[in-house]
Amino acid sequence: MTKIYGIGVGPGDPELITLKGLRILQSCGVVVYQAAVGQRSNAREIVAQYLRPDQVEVVYHLPRSLAATAIDYDKAIAPILPYLDQGQDIGVICEGDPLLYGSFMYVFTRLQGKYPIEVIPGICSPLGAAAVLGLPLSYRQDVFKIIPATLAVDRLQAELTNVDACAIIKLTRHFAKVRSVLEKLQLLGRAIYIERATMTAQQIIPIELVDPDRVPYFSLILIPSATRL
Amino acid sequence: MTKIYGIGVGPGDPELITLKGLRILQSCGVVVYQAAVGQRSNAREIVAQYLRPDQVEVVYHLPRSLAATAIDYDKAIAPILPYLDQGQDIGVICEGDPLLYGSFMYVFTRLQGKYPIEVIPGICSPLGAAAVLGLPLSYRQDVFKIIPATLAVDRLQAELTNVDACAIIKLTRHFAKVRSVLEKLQLLGRAIYIERATMTAQQIIPIELVDPDRVPYFSLILIPSATRL
Repeated sequence: MTKIYGIGVGPGDPELITLKGLRILQSCGVVVYQAAVGQRSNAREIVAQYLRPDQVEVVYHLPRSLAATAIDYDKAIAPILPYLDQGQDIGVICEGDPLLYGSFMYVFTRLQGKYPIEVIPGICSPLGAAAVLGLPLSYRQDVFKIIPATLAVDRLQAELTNVDACAIIKLTRHFAKVRSVLEKLQLLGRAIYIERATMTAQQIIPIELVDPDRVPYFSLILIPSATRL
Repeated sequence: MTKIYGIGVGPGDPELITLKGLRILQSCGVVVYQAAVGQRSNAREIVAQYLRPDQVEVVYHLPRSLAATAIDYDKAIAPILPYLDQGQDIGVICEGDPLLYGSFMYVFTRLQGKYPIEVIPGICSPLGAAAVLGLPLSYRQDVFKIIPATLAVDRLQAELTNVDACAIIKLTRHFAKVRSVLEKLQLLGRAIYIERATMTAQQIIPIELVDPDRVPYFSLILIPSATRL
């Protein structure tokens, strides 16, 4: 019977996949990845050098809207279904970690209990970014938060008030909103912006110089702990 | 000149080190790790099979008390100093990720600017635990928090009230306090306890059966998102 693997491929640098992730990826007859319609899959780009021509590749497209329902996700993973029960193992690759805002979660919840599933964790983007920037994130009693920029202003402000340390993800068109909340809370001086951390196209831009209209999905803001020990 | 690497070795399973982490580890003439006095280094245990007899091993002991000052940490990293300027690269290994509550941070802040330092991220324990447990942690607009159990009850309660999803780390003798806060907030039903996730000694114990007097350092509680999409 087919076994399904959810494989975290890490934040972008192909060498930041785990030994286990690479071993399992290369053992799978079928490799599945998510992509936006008409675009290349970021997860596939990351592991391209590790794939073999005899591995079957299957793409699926998740809905982009926050209004998407469970039924929309059911439909989205349909391209995977014909490959189940063929007896080959299926490796579903995922940027970052599969279970932390990962595209794999929508596959997992639909096929859990029907097929054996194993998850291989991956380096999430806040940790990739902190490593590149050399920023100790959180010490001892600090709470560390990962905050989606898609939240409403009130909630963003509540989460960022007196924050010990955090990563703000999913910036894209929400950058200007986040920036104004940080400014209001006098956190701009501690906030570090990075695009495509650990990828070849990585950019570190002073936050005051970021063009709010050109913030890619793979960007984030880190606020490291104010503690320095 | 010596280059210093901070290498995250991941949560416990030796196969959860990254390709880059392993490559750099094996390239270093000197391997440095933290250990409690009189105890073995957990980070060294994780990578034991990858070390070579010709690699020099150096241990340092961080203070355990939250009252420890910068001067205490200065003293703690002293065993590393004789190996600097010998021209060999130094790999400082660290459980989980080096910059997220990592023992490496105390080395980093002391030697930053004096020597070139490169950080290789590692899988942090909440992600290792979520993978083993098959728990989608956070979706879309969820805030994900990492909360140290060492916090006072009031702060714990504030952080856990209406929490979307979180990992509670550093449990040890703080388990009973955390459990009572979770009970008060009616979160016990969502809380999953795991010890030594991804290690061979891994234990998954129903939270109501955990003996508060026998909670090891490598244990944590996950509260996954209530969203299921």
